[in-house]
Amino acid sequence: MKKLRVTFYPGNITTEAEEGKTILSAAISAGIQIHSSCGGEGLCGRCKVMVKSGKVITQSTGAFEFNEKKQGIYLACITTIHSDLEVEVLAQARLDERPQEQALEGKLKKLYSESEEVTPGGADLTENVYLYSPLATKIYLELTRPDLKDAISDLERIYRHIRKVKDLPLVQTSLTNIRQLGELLRDADWKITATLVQRNGALEVVLIEPGDTSGKNFGLCFDIGTTTISGQLVDLNNKNILGTKAIYNKQASFGSDVIARIIHAQESDGLEQLHLAVNQCINHVIEELTKEHKVDLNNLNCIVCAGNTTMIHLLLSIDPTYIRREPYVPTANFLPVIRAAEAGIKINPRGLLFSVPGVSSYVGGDVTAGVLACGLYKEDELSLLIDIGTNGEIVLGNKEFLISASASAGPAFEGSSVSSGMRASRGAIQKVKINPKNLEISCSVIGDVEPVGICGSGYIDLISQMLKTGLLDKGGKLSGKDCARLRSGREGREFVLFPAKDSATGTDVVITEADIENLKRSKAAIYAAATTLVKHMGLELGDIKKIFIAGGFGNYIDIDSAVNIGLLPDIDRSRFIFVGNSSLAGARSMLLSYQAFIKAEEIAKKITYCELSVEPGYMDEYMAALFFPHTDLKKFPTF
Amino acid sequence: MKKLRVTFYPGNITTEAEEGKTILSAAISAGIQIHSSCGGEGLCGRCKVMVKSGKVITQSTGAFEFNEKKQGIYLACITTIHSDLEVEVLAQARLDERPQEQALEGKLKKLYSESEEVTPGGADLTENVYLYSPLATKIYLELTRPDLKDAISDLERIYRHIRKVKDLPLVQTSLTNIRQLGELLRDADWKITATLVQRNGALEVVLIEPGDTSGKNFGLCFDIGTTTISGQLVDLNNKNILGTKAIYNKQASFGSDVIARIIHAQESDGLEQLHLAVNQCINHVIEELTKEHKVDLNNLNCIVCAGNTTMIHLLLSIDPTYIRREPYVPTANFLPVIRAAEAGIKINPRGLLFSVPGVSSYVGGDVTAGVLACGLYKEDELSLLIDIGTNGEIVLGNKEFLISASASAGPAFEGSSVSSGMRASRGAIQKVKINPKNLEISCSVIGDVEPVGICGSGYIDLISQMLKTGLLDKGGKLSGKDCARLRSGREGREFVLFPAKDSATGTDVVITEADIENLKRSKAAIYAAATTLVKHMGLELGDIKKIFIAGGFGNYIDIDSAVNIGLLPDIDRSRFIFVGNSSLAGARSMLLSYQAFIKAEEIAKKITYCELSVEPGYMDEYMAALFFPHTDLKKFPTF
Repeated sequence: MKKLRVTFYPGNITTEAEEGKTILSAAISAGIQIHSSCGGEGLCGRCKVMVKSGKVITQSTGAFEFNEKKQGIYLACITTIHSDLEVEVLAQARLDERPQEQALEGKLKKLYSESEEVTPGGADLTENVYLYSPLATKIYLELTRPDLKDAISDLERIYRHIRKVKDLPLVQTSLTNIRQLGELLRDADWKITATLVQRNGALEVVLIEPGDTSGKNFGLCFDIGTTTISGQLVDLNNKNILGTKAIYNKQASFGSDVIARIIHAQESDGLEQLHLAVNQCINHVIEELTKEHKVDLNNLNCIVCAGNTTMIHLLLSIDPTYIRREPYVPTANFLPVIRAAEAGIKINPRGLLFSVPGVSSYVGGDVTAGVLACGLYKEDELSLLIDIGTNGEIVLGNKEFLISASASAGPAFEGSSVSSGMRASRGAIQKVKINPKNLEISCSVIGDVEPVGICGSGYIDLISQMLKTGLLDKGGKLSGKDCARLRSGREGREFVLFPAKDSATGTDVVITEADIENLKRSKAAIYAAATTLVKHMGLELGDIKKIFIAGGFGNYIDIDSAVNIGLLPDIDRSRFIFVGNSSLAGARSMLLSYQAFIKAEEIAKKITYCELSVEPGYMDEYMAALFFPHTDLKKFPTF
Repeated sequence: MKKLRVTFYPGNITTEAEEGKTILSAAISAGIQIHSSCGGEGLCGRCKVMVKSGKVITQSTGAFEFNEKKQGIYLACITTIHSDLEVEVLAQARLDERPQEQALEGKLKKLYSESEEVTPGGADLTENVYLYSPLATKIYLELTRPDLKDAISDLERIYRHIRKVKDLPLVQTSLTNIRQLGELLRDADWKITATLVQRNGALEVVLIEPGDTSGKNFGLCFDIGTTTISGQLVDLNNKNILGTKAIYNKQASFGSDVIARIIHAQESDGLEQLHLAVNQCINHVIEELTKEHKVDLNNLNCIVCAGNTTMIHLLLSIDPTYIRREPYVPTANFLPVIRAAEAGIKINPRGLLFSVPGVSSYVGGDVTAGVLACGLYKEDELSLLIDIGTNGEIVLGNKEFLISASASAGPAFEGSSVSSGMRASRGAIQKVKINPKNLEISCSVIGDVEPVGICGSGYIDLISQMLKTGLLDKGGKLSGKDCARLRSGREGREFVLFPAKDSATGTDVVITEADIENLKRSKAAIYAAATTLVKHMGLELGDIKKIFIAGGFGNYIDIDSAVNIGLLPDIDRSRFIFVGNSSLAGARSMLLSYQAFIKAEEIAKKITYCELSVEPGYMDEYMAALFFPHTDLKKFPTF
């Protein structure tokens, strides 16, 4: 095959590609992250590029306008390369934040890095709830020296000393720790630190180091979302959270939802590409956190990962094919504890990776972790957990029962697949007010800097405010009002929050009708899932005493706005509790408490699963929810 | 460094070597096995080669005669290369049996292969003793298909079915088995075979295969000796021993005893070389056994290895340095169960390797296995186990106590380091009678073929008969009798059993005074160890009701001869029980019975160890035993 050169802008990155390959595949091999929500099917229209020079062949698709082709704009996923090319990746298609960051240089000094420090939002869920017994502990031992009267082996000598302080069975340590043990003990003059990790009711000596390193014992917890990956660095000696970072999941280049990813995994190298993408993200977050907090990777011996079932399959390189085929069976919900290195995760080479157990193909360990963090499983009263992510998961129950469902909501509330969307991080518009008289806008921006984009809570406020001020109708169409902020853009009608001159990036911050459609579908899917599940149990929304709202919104969500747009049901506001990233909070509880990990296993076994795709009424609920707030206004009496 | 070419004969094998390196190191890198009992110190005089052309530099040593140098004979270990060389490896220095085999071609069709089929000798020790519960079992499962009402994960489905038939906790299976499980199950139409291995009181699913392979379930047990490695292939479904093979340990190129090996391990790459040597031997035996019995390596899921502590350290690449330094502490006596692949052993890649637990630096798992096989630990009466190997190990005890000791005996009784020595295999002289009138010799040769050499039991008979007929005096010198069989050879006086024309190899089968000296030291070390240990406990030989004699003698040892030469004490002959390779028998018991493995762990913990090197009286006992049968004839009243 003929090799051709493709140069991508911004960034001026050149790669080689075979003739006839798609521009998207060339971008992926060049390490350029392009949004491709549909997984390269030519359907979502996200992966737009402008071909500045060279010959391409494209296919026709509805996701693409004829006048765009005249401007040289194509969809990267269905456009093939037939000469050397120069290609501009349009802003909306860029997943990688670096170009934005470059644009900001000089304007705002290091506004944000590729992965973000996140202020964990919501109620503090873990304080004093579980017995403090971190998965990894370090103990310093001054061993007695052997002599002819006490000549037990080196390894048994260590075990003997550990048994004096730890009352748990010791399982065999690995050969790697044994091979050079003789020299290590003698060089260290019999003073060593043993790192012990709890699993399956026993202790494993995962590491033996010379000298006293017991003061340095760190762990990691991760929430591995379809769109966003969040990680936390925790000092296991004192429970302190040293830092939290979030990053977009690089797998987004292969599709925005789990279905697209599973389809991609079936291609040759597809599983390997997806696996590499997620482990690169995790390693990147670990690298940033450890650099910033000056933690040696060798002092990280434990990582707990909560994620939906597909994400965990991909993390561990397990073929996810059968998750999307009826009857929707994952390969495993309870995963073995493995060496983190087996999944390519760079912590101490002997360190262990725990996957939080899941429930079913579409209710994963992230939900188990959320239930653990919110405590639904031990309440007398009925509670509901709504986790708003790319998959929206719902759990209903109390100490007697737990039932779950899952809805494909899309990544809009995570700031992905919406034109000015971003994560809840520095520069994100998180609160919006619109003055009904003059339609002036006032915003709260995270970090009090010039706005970069809009995060989930910002979108919720914005739509609510636009509805209240008549800028938006209940069907999701922008009004014909004479307002300078309303205009026709490349993708149809749009509303401008900040013109380019007032934004941090030098580009307009807008919301388009297409964005609003995306957000409407997301909220409808989540609302319909919650109401269907409640109905399935023969209950009514009014029976529910607490509703936990979880998701990566940062530290803020306006419940009134969320009800107003029909994302949340219209019940007594005091029943809502915003808990932020409950999956990450639950994973942290497990990292800090082996008892919490055991509890999570019980929870995963206890939760039953309701498959909405075969549930009578779900589709009707969804269709009815495709309005703001709902077609049936009796359900939203406040409005 | 200048690269020079060295060509070795027989075999015409050429290798490159750096100028100044020893001929021994060149031979090792060419894969030529040369005896080097002293580990390359120039002391033992075993590694003789004849330099046919080229320039060498050698050192002076007592182990080497001046007139040999005139013939161009040098010690390979202390002679360095200074030009291209042609080198003949003398017969006595060859460890590899292939040259001999080549010599035999045409004379006897395939007399023996590199590794030998061995008829296991001695009492059958394992019949019905331990509950039949092999370490690896296979179960065929016809799984119910998942549907929307029964959508548990693939892995949990398998576990659920296993739990119906196995009442043991299941430990997590490895990720490798999980990764492609979804496809495997569906391709196999939910009919699979699970291979389960017992360890630490739980079952591990080590393998999941499509279809019904439960009929093919094989295992291996090995005795890994300093000089000889013996392996057995066992059908785990019916306890049948399919075959047994033995091979010389290729590590002999690095020294004949464990001390020389440990010293070699401290050199750069030394540990790796020793590790490779033993795993090549094991793999070779496995290959021969599986080829011969048409067993697929994938159906081998379990291997049990018994060996002395140094051999097990080297097998697992554990630094053995501290075994030989006071206070003689091994890195580990209880080794983790590992994937056989971690030690480079080629069975099923998921198969497990169990090391039989040892007692101390010089009493290893081979002794534990021997005690298990002989049943000392459960007897009311006092018994003694004497295991005659390169290290002679002694265990004394009953159900109340067990005490052990170890003596460095050397490899003479295994047919190594003696000029016509060989293992107890086809072609070995195993019984000898000398007519006192005419000094005519009659022999029994294993396989009833022309003799190749002499094995341990043959040497015991031979010395005993030579003593009785006055051919040998009590000090170990050959008599001056006028006998055609007595002559002066290259290494001093020697006695010819078969001239070249009557032997299978076309070379003389002889015993030299040097051989006799080696054998005398071996028997003295073993006898002294046994008597010292009995004394240490305040007992006398007469108190012992059973003496188990173990060792790789094949299926025969003449107790009278062994007493006559002073190897065994002179007590009532009915108390002696010849048990052959008890280490291999014990390892086989463990392979076939998890309960036996647990029992072995108890035994290893129970056995105490008496360090003879610091035991008062041991040296005197040894010196006194350096006569045939002993300096103190009162101890041998029969003679």
